[in-house]
Amino acid sequence: MNAIEELTESLSRLPGIGKKSASRIAYHLLSSDRGECRRLGQELSCLHDRICRCSVCGAYTEADPCPICTSPLRERSLLCVVEQPQDVRIIEDSREFRGLFHVLGGLISPLDGIGPEQLSLQSLMERIRAGEITEVIIATNPTVEGDTTALYIQRLLAESPVTVSRLASGLPVGGDLEYADRLTLARSFRGRVAL
Amino acid sequence: MNAIEELTESLSRLPGIGKKSASRIAYHLLSSDRGECRRLGQELSCLHDRICRCSVCGAYTEADPCPICTSPLRERSLLCVVEQPQDVRIIEDSREFRGLFHVLGGLISPLDGIGPEQLSLQSLMERIRAGEITEVIIATNPTVEGDTTALYIQRLLAESPVTVSRLASGLPVGGDLEYADRLTLARSFRGRVAL
Repeated sequence: MNAIEELTESLSRLPGIGKKSASRIAYHLLSSDRGECRRLGQELSCLHDRICRCSVCGAYTEADPCPICTSPLRERSLLCVVEQPQDVRIIEDSREFRGLFHVLGGLISPLDGIGPEQLSLQSLMERIRAGEITEVIIATNPTVEGDTTALYIQRLLAESPVTVSRLASGLPVGGDLEYADRLTLARSFRGRVAL
Repeated sequence: MNAIEELTESLSRLPGIGKKSASRIAYHLLSSDRGECRRLGQELSCLHDRICRCSVCGAYTEADPCPICTSPLRERSLLCVVEQPQDVRIIEDSREFRGLFHVLGGLISPLDGIGPEQLSLQSLMERIRAGEITEVIIATNPTVEGDTTALYIQRLLAESPVTVSRLASGLPVGGDLEYADRLTLARSFRGRVAL
């Protein structure tokens, strides 16, 4: 197997890249600038050395604790609980939330053998016990696993003095009733808002 | 810009990878094995060092001349002319052709400022003058540029004692008349084969 085939093989293992796309990318890199190809190689080689998990919230960061956890501009009374580190970036990109984050590192899923003990719930409880947080916003996906995990956290925090909320679920903005599935429609009826 | 953003930016510059896919790949690499990520980085870093162009046919290779040009098992009287180095691999994968290759390095395209002098036609003529080749099969794409280039080569070789042929163009195998475009249909009529 030569270098092109090896690279094609490795690229086709990435999510969303099939055999043909991998080959196309490999030949694109070969015909493109040598420096650009090497730079991408460097970025990949040192990725794990440069990025670690924040010891406070669990997000990916270059500095520990991460810039969000140490920022004096964030509302320290609001805590948004998310499934994965990349969810932090997605919510940050929306510029809608100015509080702190907590990454669970997964969702409760008995079928996949993931129980509450595999998630970072211990550290979540410790952060809440520290007393600064007044509201916990659960931002797990509106799926069976996301709902289960949200319910579990809600019960876990029943004794705590914090408010627990969850992201609204319903019709997407710009969407069409015609294309909404039954479950989404049912949820937007149940969660209807007074005008 | 941190390491994840830099990598996402670089990945999104690759063909067929948008901003979202790039981000998905970056986070996949972060959550996956450190060694796998570094291996891919290594493969990219040394790609241009390991691969060069064959000085005879112009294909990408690790050894110069390439394994095809030096193989004693290939029919040295047949020469297949292709546009790009990756076309060699595509034809090799089909296992249909057992002769030698010649990579043009492009197609004649006056609109893009590419004339015959930018293609490796000089070395093609030298190879033909060497006398071993009896048939030249032009395997350029059935596009305006591919047709123009094929015609140009055909005229160039008019004085040579070699046969010049071109890959058949028509309905793809397993295709449907209903979905064939007008030009393809017209070509398959003109190129119809006696049964």
